[in-house]
Amino acid sequence: MEVIRSARQLRHRLAGEGSIGFVPTMGSLHEGHLSLVREARNQASCVVASIFVNRLQFGPGEDFERYPRSLEQDVAHLASSGCQVVFAPDEAELYPRPQRVFVQPSALKDTLEGAVRPGHFQGVCTVVMKLFQMVQPQIALFGKKDYQQWLILREMVEGLAMPIRMVGGETVRATDGLALSSRNAYLSVTERAEAPRLQQRLSGVAKAVQDGADAAGAEREALSVLQQHGWVLDYLTVRRQLDLELPQAGDRALVVLAAARLGNTRLIDNLEFTLPDGHHGS
Amino acid sequence: MEVIRSARQLRHRLAGEGSIGFVPTMGSLHEGHLSLVREARNQASCVVASIFVNRLQFGPGEDFERYPRSLEQDVAHLASSGCQVVFAPDEAELYPRPQRVFVQPSALKDTLEGAVRPGHFQGVCTVVMKLFQMVQPQIALFGKKDYQQWLILREMVEGLAMPIRMVGGETVRATDGLALSSRNAYLSVTERAEAPRLQQRLSGVAKAVQDGADAAGAEREALSVLQQHGWVLDYLTVRRQLDLELPQAGDRALVVLAAARLGNTRLIDNLEFTLPDGHHGS
Repeated sequence: MEVIRSARQLRHRLAGEGSIGFVPTMGSLHEGHLSLVREARNQASCVVASIFVNRLQFGPGEDFERYPRSLEQDVAHLASSGCQVVFAPDEAELYPRPQRVFVQPSALKDTLEGAVRPGHFQGVCTVVMKLFQMVQPQIALFGKKDYQQWLILREMVEGLAMPIRMVGGETVRATDGLALSSRNAYLSVTERAEAPRLQQRLSGVAKAVQDGADAAGAEREALSVLQQHGWVLDYLTVRRQLDLELPQAGDRALVVLAAARLGNTRLIDNLEFTLPDGHHGS
Repeated sequence: MEVIRSARQLRHRLAGEGSIGFVPTMGSLHEGHLSLVREARNQASCVVASIFVNRLQFGPGEDFERYPRSLEQDVAHLASSGCQVVFAPDEAELYPRPQRVFVQPSALKDTLEGAVRPGHFQGVCTVVMKLFQMVQPQIALFGKKDYQQWLILREMVEGLAMPIRMVGGETVRATDGLALSSRNAYLSVTERAEAPRLQQRLSGVAKAVQDGADAAGAEREALSVLQQHGWVLDYLTVRRQLDLELPQAGDRALVVLAAARLGNTRLIDNLEFTLPDGHHGS
């Protein structure tokens, strides 16, 4: 496996590759990322992973500076997962000048994560566009733990007619249900023990709605339980999978999404679920 | 020469081509476009021209509906200029759904043409991005008659790290100096006789500034002459070539740009010029 620092060398290395599968990451890799790398291996002849902590998608006061960085360990994990090329540019390679041109995502950028983190998805789309231009993959893989990001990037690729097949990977979880995340490293031992409750409550909401409960009521109950256990919620809401709008009568493919702080750590998670046939919707 | 209507067929036709030179147009072709096609022929093994009148870059009340369309004649011109593939998609091919994702150009989008035509350059960048994704050229050619568009598209390609070499073509003029433009077709016989005055005044401003005149004074004089001859000016201004900012002391690479209406027809033109060494600037 090669570690490449410049876009120029990367293009040279990848010229003539048959099909390229690309897994963009911000490093600090866990089993969620590595499962995407293994899936890329199944679908492409050359697997490229990038490691770049993208300043553009962090807001003022967010955790850009303290975001965990562990290049050496990441490279070892990637090598043992079947990755062939690691692209690990420095900031001057991605942003040689202040960025003045952006990809402006659809209105999906303004809801949920976007409402709490203005500019976040524009930063995500812009860096992913640049990475796509550098790697020129045929297939790109993203984790569905970042559900809204996944939808927005899929829209970007489709809306700009990019010749890339987008593959979403299921969220990988610890044995106690906590979604794997680089930010889990911020949690204290006590917080780590509490953290699985987020997923448990999402699961509870999904089951309640499937059993015919009103979504708003199920959300309120989950919120209340989490608050009692010290969580500060940004949102916890049932939406349609398609466009993250509030479900209409007849919508069956739903997702419950949440973002919440435990101490100083902000966690997000989501759970897709489907209403049974004949269900009257919410 | 082949005329291709769908992006799918286009990708199929272009797969395996060595180097692709691309000339995006809105049709109604003239010698300005055809000179770009011939230049593309010099620089690439396969020349693709697109013909698509892009609704996204027209504002409300602009001339989208009456913009001249002459596909058959355009195709004949392209064939005789060495073009190998014409991509002529219909609107449903470029915009199968309402466009929700955009390329947001730099602040250059807000000045001059952008001040008069809000949203114009976002529309230009978005369609050119989509066409680039469909054609995947190594070289793309644009006329410098649309000077600000040329700068903005160059910034897009550089700012988003697109692996495309951008080539600007000099403005092609009628023997009386009028810059060739599809919109010249709107001019009455009398207006057509008057139209070269725009270029003459730009040339006058450039010479005056090169001879040491104050730019603002030269602009005012040109404006006054044009107004006396029935022109309604949107702008006529000397800027730096680099970023279309007002020239600072020491700037030598300048351009004078104008947009003006003659009757119902809006014409734009520009002239690059260089201040002689030792000139004190404006």
